[in-house]
Amino acid sequence: MKYELLKTEGAAKRARVTTVHGVIETPVFMNVATAAAIKGGVSTMDLHDIGTQVALCNTYHLHVRPGDTLVHEMGGLHRFMKWDRPILTDSGGFQVFSLADLRRSKEEGVTFRSHVDGAKIFMGPEESMRIQSHLASTIAMAFDECPPSHAAYDYVKNSVDRTTRWLARCKAEMARLNALPETINKEQLLFGINQGAVYHDIRIEHAKRISEMELDGYAVGGLAVGETHEEMYSVLDETVPHLPKDKPTYLMGVGTPQNIIEGVARGIDFFDCVYPSRNGRHGNLYTGHGTLHIMNAKYAKDDRPIEEGCGCPACRAGYSRAYIRHLMKAQEMLGLRFCVMHNLYFYNRLMQEIRDALDEGRFAAYRASKLDELAQGVQ
Amino acid sequence: MKYELLKTEGAAKRARVTTVHGVIETPVFMNVATAAAIKGGVSTMDLHDIGTQVALCNTYHLHVRPGDTLVHEMGGLHRFMKWDRPILTDSGGFQVFSLADLRRSKEEGVTFRSHVDGAKIFMGPEESMRIQSHLASTIAMAFDECPPSHAAYDYVKNSVDRTTRWLARCKAEMARLNALPETINKEQLLFGINQGAVYHDIRIEHAKRISEMELDGYAVGGLAVGETHEEMYSVLDETVPHLPKDKPTYLMGVGTPQNIIEGVARGIDFFDCVYPSRNGRHGNLYTGHGTLHIMNAKYAKDDRPIEEGCGCPACRAGYSRAYIRHLMKAQEMLGLRFCVMHNLYFYNRLMQEIRDALDEGRFAAYRASKLDELAQGVQ
Repeated sequence: MKYELLKTEGAAKRARVTTVHGVIETPVFMNVATAAAIKGGVSTMDLHDIGTQVALCNTYHLHVRPGDTLVHEMGGLHRFMKWDRPILTDSGGFQVFSLADLRRSKEEGVTFRSHVDGAKIFMGPEESMRIQSHLASTIAMAFDECPPSHAAYDYVKNSVDRTTRWLARCKAEMARLNALPETINKEQLLFGINQGAVYHDIRIEHAKRISEMELDGYAVGGLAVGETHEEMYSVLDETVPHLPKDKPTYLMGVGTPQNIIEGVARGIDFFDCVYPSRNGRHGNLYTGHGTLHIMNAKYAKDDRPIEEGCGCPACRAGYSRAYIRHLMKAQEMLGLRFCVMHNLYFYNRLMQEIRDALDEGRFAAYRASKLDELAQGVQ
Repeated sequence: MKYELLKTEGAAKRARVTTVHGVIETPVFMNVATAAAIKGGVSTMDLHDIGTQVALCNTYHLHVRPGDTLVHEMGGLHRFMKWDRPILTDSGGFQVFSLADLRRSKEEGVTFRSHVDGAKIFMGPEESMRIQSHLASTIAMAFDECPPSHAAYDYVKNSVDRTTRWLARCKAEMARLNALPETINKEQLLFGINQGAVYHDIRIEHAKRISEMELDGYAVGGLAVGETHEEMYSVLDETVPHLPKDKPTYLMGVGTPQNIIEGVARGIDFFDCVYPSRNGRHGNLYTGHGTLHIMNAKYAKDDRPIEEGCGCPACRAGYSRAYIRHLMKAQEMLGLRFCVMHNLYFYNRLMQEIRDALDEGRFAAYRASKLDELAQGVQ
């Protein structure tokens, strides 16, 4: 991996990351393809069309179905889902701690039950690395413990210590796996994850410790889980300066267009969030002037595209708000497809605007005017 | 409308129909877009890609949602759904007699309740024509009574007489509507529908009567509703010769690839059926050697496309049976989308093969070898 810092403006970074699966221009928003597919009937052919750079797949979901050994036999995720650009896999940790039933966490790892068939599964740092190695993603995430958002100080401190010990185990196992002959992607990258809830001193101490471990990149995890935006920005202000500037930084699970602009301003390279696809499936559509709810009666006879001038496949072809509203009311999948593609395009386009602004040294002005524009409301 | 009979072989016809919305090469399979969209997230952009010539939309569905007056205000179906090629709308009759609740049929028309909101609706020949005129389809279908498939002789005879009286009312109303200044498609075509269940004498007598009415085309309706294939072929053998040879003939709601080949051999130009899209949504996929059920465990690690050499978007891009099976198991919409596109492409391609065989005077040989091939079973 090569990380080239092309420009900076304040804490904001404009970088280029070169991987075995191609180049990632950052800041970047990764498009969430949970079970090796974007929800809403969006294919990897469509992803090229909407400007997706990185697909994010979920280790937990793929482990339980179709199984990572099957994906390995099929030549890895890239071959399986026909996507030739970078893929980041999460560690499974977040899903295990939030979705799975009957979990039990101890030093070795976590025992839980599959949401598909109830089967008992054990996952620790080594298991997560082995699964991700089978999936052969470009970037693997470390297996971390995700404490509840309102956890007390001592609980969080102990949990973060465990996450650090797990990170060392992840790194050792990844090195071992990348050296095996049967490994598909022998240059799989490993990103560590900073935790510490909203406790600044724990966050900072943890950031310093993991920075010394010479990983390929660093994520800030455990945010956007219930704290206020101000608390989140404050954590970033305190923590990101203690992560290496010459490595990618990744703010996990964030967020709104506003959150992303604020994250970039604080030095974040990578983002991911289910908002564009999930909101799209509910008919909440992003525009430069904020979101519109396509089910609203006022769009019933609106002949305009979702957003004038938008280059997404639905707007470009001229499908009207009235038609898309009808499709959503009639529960036609095509409506979901248009809405999800529009929203993902909006996010990918937003990142392009951010990169252009950074390239041209006008990010501060862009940030101010864009936040203002987003607050105006849709006509 | 211009109907050019380009070639014949036995009773089979190869024709070209020129409409205000473009040319239709027949025999043709119309792709069913019930509520102004193909189910499975397939857009009108995709339809160009899979070789669709004619979209078929359902008058009953569009009348109850979003409403034909709304579609009229939006400039008609072509503008509403962004489809620039021919559209055929059914009359609503079949849906009223099969889907809607609490119907009451009398000479004026039918009273029933909407499946969407339970609202009481009256539809007769004039109402059906007005709705279809609002929708502004290329071809409107006459409003007919659809007797139950096992109806007794006298019941069917009386019903067919009513259908004939309704046809005269449809023709008069269509002429009136096509002359109105606010009508979007003033050259809307009207096809009459032959009925008579499996009673040959009623079918023949009816075919003769409606042939005298100088309509733009003629459909054979009320088949594929429970009778055997042999009964259906026998009705076609007896009836089609009594319909005008210099006008399009349309076998409604039919059928399997085998049914279509047999229909062509008996002089049919137009076909439509929900099989390819409905079977696709259930993972039953058409190939040159019969259907395969993608959920079958034997495809779990099958790296081949649905069908080698197939030009559908899914096969062309190389998405594997294993991946599509995974998508279907995980209930990802993308799986449905691939399956529906593959099946529609298969049907459209089948019609192309049939046209090529007719053009080259080798339809008899094609029919025999294709039926044999379809019976072989998938590897």
